[in-house]
Amino acid sequence: MYIGVDLGGTNIAVGLVDDSGKILHSASVPTLKERDWREIVRDMGELSLRVVKEAGYTLSQIKGVGIGCPGTIDNERGMVVYSNNIVMENVPLAEEFRKYVDLPVNLENDANAAAYGEFFTCGDGIDSFVFITLGTGVGGGIVLNGKLWRGFNGAGAEIGHQTLIYGGKLCTCGRKGCLESYASVTALISQTEEAIAAHPESMMKKWFEEKGKVTGRTAFECAAKGDPAAIAVRDQYIEYVAEGVCSIVNVLQPQVLAIGGGISREGETLLGPIRAYFEKNDFNKFMPKTDIRIATLFGDAGIVGAAMAAKS
Amino acid sequence: MYIGVDLGGTNIAVGLVDDSGKILHSASVPTLKERDWREIVRDMGELSLRVVKEAGYTLSQIKGVGIGCPGTIDNERGMVVYSNNIVMENVPLAEEFRKYVDLPVNLENDANAAAYGEFFTCGDGIDSFVFITLGTGVGGGIVLNGKLWRGFNGAGAEIGHQTLIYGGKLCTCGRKGCLESYASVTALISQTEEAIAAHPESMMKKWFEEKGKVTGRTAFECAAKGDPAAIAVRDQYIEYVAEGVCSIVNVLQPQVLAIGGGISREGETLLGPIRAYFEKNDFNKFMPKTDIRIATLFGDAGIVGAAMAAKS
Repeated sequence: MYIGVDLGGTNIAVGLVDDSGKILHSASVPTLKERDWREIVRDMGELSLRVVKEAGYTLSQIKGVGIGCPGTIDNERGMVVYSNNIVMENVPLAEEFRKYVDLPVNLENDANAAAYGEFFTCGDGIDSFVFITLGTGVGGGIVLNGKLWRGFNGAGAEIGHQTLIYGGKLCTCGRKGCLESYASVTALISQTEEAIAAHPESMMKKWFEEKGKVTGRTAFECAAKGDPAAIAVRDQYIEYVAEGVCSIVNVLQPQVLAIGGGISREGETLLGPIRAYFEKNDFNKFMPKTDIRIATLFGDAGIVGAAMAAKS
Repeated sequence: MYIGVDLGGTNIAVGLVDDSGKILHSASVPTLKERDWREIVRDMGELSLRVVKEAGYTLSQIKGVGIGCPGTIDNERGMVVYSNNIVMENVPLAEEFRKYVDLPVNLENDANAAAYGEFFTCGDGIDSFVFITLGTGVGGGIVLNGKLWRGFNGAGAEIGHQTLIYGGKLCTCGRKGCLESYASVTALISQTEEAIAAHPESMMKKWFEEKGKVTGRTAFECAAKGDPAAIAVRDQYIEYVAEGVCSIVNVLQPQVLAIGGGISREGETLLGPIRAYFEKNDFNKFMPKTDIRIATLFGDAGIVGAAMAAKS
């Protein structure tokens, strides 16, 4: 049994996870990310103790703790080297956490932790895996030979920062044309807004006026009702994602690639065209192909992955 | 001591390689690639025996054979699944070779073998490595945790088939806008030819008229003499390569990335601007950076790599 801690910009989520990756009990509290990081870690520790107690266990029954945290992580030293979301720089997070919970602690980047959770859930027989998460940005993680590949320096698996269009849209990273600038939900919202401006007759405009804002769902919902401008936005967005899938698969050829993030709830609407595009454009024509899937854990990936990475 | 066999479209090259990766003796014969593959393998076998004998050794002193071969390779079964260059389909190459040389045989894709050779030459302390070779196409290989990463199906490390410009130039793989369509020597020659047509006053036109054809050197040589159109071609070409370097490093963050192929003989002219572009555009801002280098083995990479991969 392991404790998984998912430290997010909005909430701290903690779960007690059994050896099979099942969450036995979980709870969350607000991160209040403007606070001193030590206060945040105190809440992470206290929430962990509470979750164990509420589940009816004692710390002596827990083998370790996994923490997923945004930013650049030094996994070996348990340090947050730099985080922009929850502001931290050269912070000994694992050491601080152990003041509250005296167990072995494994600190991972949050996207790596989520990737490991999704990988773990694939079950036996899978030992190479890529996770792409479509959210505010495009993140991900890489598992090769059953282990997270973090790069030699812990800064790897930035799948959203492969080039999609050299010299294209400015990315949050400062470079132009990264996959993230076209395939994130943020990008989808921009693409939708541009289409609304260009096609005031579109159903998307009405959707926007009713809900008060454009979201990642606007184009998908209006497209499902047959709106041509929405279909164009949706299909183009999906092709951006599919092109990114081809790029990463051509490099890594993992057994399984899973797509996660809020937009992945679109399920087959998203997956079907991606698989078709991949089938046609994958460089590999003669060997078994990567299995492209929708991720399954959604919000639980961080907790499960952090916990199971601590087990590995 | 190992035998390294580099099966190319033009020549079969064989070398006797000691455990430190040094070639003790080597020789080559024409591939005559239109022949039946069994005849090619017979020549590979006979040349191997000759090289061992000429070097003054006997087969009993050799621990194994490594073969680098173009195409899709099934490393575990020693099969060439498909090769387009030397036409082969589902060919038990390792088994056939052992009719002539009865030693353990390891069959690799030729780009993987070359990558492993360059990796091996990096020496101790390096255990993650990416090789990009700029030639007729853009190939490469990936070494992680000291081992070749071939993908779960052996079809991985197709670094030239990451996207550079979504929807861009048609690539040899059928997709549009792959790195290969911009960063191969073939692409550089096209870019040079286009610049000659657009700038008839350019020194490149005279170069072409004197030599009778445009090569990968045309733009580099004329740029070195200050020709503005040639400088523009060279600098743009280098930036394409540098952008590809950023993409692969953002995904893998290897300790070392080496650039090989004929064009890499340009040395610092190529490497300097790539390093500067990478320094500015790498996603990783807080951790040690990938060391970008020029590969060192040139034509020997295939022999050394095949032999050392057999050792590993």
